[in-house]
Amino acid sequence: MGIFSKDIKTMDDLFVHTLRDIYYAEKQILKALPKMIDKATDRSLIDGLKHHLKETEGHVQRVEKVFQMHGVEAKGVDCPAIDGILQEADEIMGDVEDKRVLDAAIIAAGQAVEHYEMTRYGTLVEWANELGRPDCAAELQKNLDEEKAADKKLTEIAENRINLQAAE
Amino acid sequence: MGIFSKDIKTMDDLFVHTLRDIYYAEKQILKALPKMIDKATDRSLIDGLKHHLKETEGHVQRVEKVFQMHGVEAKGVDCPAIDGILQEADEIMGDVEDKRVLDAAIIAAGQAVEHYEMTRYGTLVEWANELGRPDCAAELQKNLDEEKAADKKLTEIAENRINLQAAE
Repeated sequence: MGIFSKDIKTMDDLFVHTLRDIYYAEKQILKALPKMIDKATDRSLIDGLKHHLKETEGHVQRVEKVFQMHGVEAKGVDCPAIDGILQEADEIMGDVEDKRVLDAAIIAAGQAVEHYEMTRYGTLVEWANELGRPDCAAELQKNLDEEKAADKKLTEIAENRINLQAAE
Repeated sequence: MGIFSKDIKTMDDLFVHTLRDIYYAEKQILKALPKMIDKATDRSLIDGLKHHLKETEGHVQRVEKVFQMHGVEAKGVDCPAIDGILQEADEIMGDVEDKRVLDAAIIAAGQAVEHYEMTRYGTLVEWANELGRPDCAAELQKNLDEEKAADKKLTEIAENRINLQAAE
C-alpha cells in the first residue's frame, strides 16, 4: 500500500488508502491486459480478456466516482502486491513457447489478478458500510461482482480447454 | 514466479513451477504470521491467526508431500506476488497506531494472503487433475479448503468487530 501508510489514523484514512491502492492496481491491469490478449491463442480466452478489458475501463471510472462521492482526490498509491502479481504474469508469458501451456499460464495469471481485486473490493465494500457510506459501498460492490464473474469465466475457459484436449 | 520460467515447456513444468511458487509463498507466510499475531489486539483475530499459523505449517508439509509424490525436488522459486502482498501488510502494520484500525488492516492483509493462496491452489488442483494426478490434486485440495475456511473466518471476525463497535 506504499508510502502513505504512516498517515493512516482512522478507518476513513484506511478506506481512502485502500481505494488508492486498488485505483493504482486497476490502472496497471489496464496496461497489462492488452499484452495478455496478444499472447493468448484460445478464442474464448481472447474474447474473455477483451471483455474484461472493457470492464476494467469501467472499474477505473467507478473508483473515480467513489473518490468524488467521498470528497477526496483521485490518485493512486504504490501497490507492490499487484506489481508482483503482474511481474509474475509477464515473466511467464515471455518464456513459455507452447501455445496450450501459455494459455493455461495466462488463465492462471488472470485469476491471480482477479483474486487480488476481489479481496480488496470485498474489504472496501465492508469498510464503506462501516463508515456509513452505503452509496460508495454499492458502487464498489458492482466492481466486486464483475471481478467475481471474470474469475468464474476464467475457470470455465480453463475447464473447456482441458475438455477439448481430452476429446482430441 | 521468478527466474526459472524460461524452462517451462510442458504442463508438467508449469505445474511444478507453480508448486514451487506456492511453496515459497507458504514459507514466507509462516514468517509473516507471528508478526501479525503480535500486532493484533482483537482476541478472536489473534486466535484465528494462531490457528492458521498451525495450519500453514501443515500446508508446507503437504506441499512437500506433493513434491515427493510427483518425484521432484522440494524447493521454492521467487514469488514477487506474495512478497508484494506481505510488504504491504508489513508497511501498514508498522504505521497504524489506533488498535481498532490496525486490527481492520491486519484482517484485510490476511485476506489478501488467503486470496493469493486460493487462486494458486485452485489452479494447481486443476492442473494436477489434467496431468492425471488425482492423488496430488486431493492433497492440494485440502490446502485449498483450509485457505477458503481461513478467509471466511476472517470475514466473520471483521463483521463481529463492526457489530461490537456499533453496540458500544
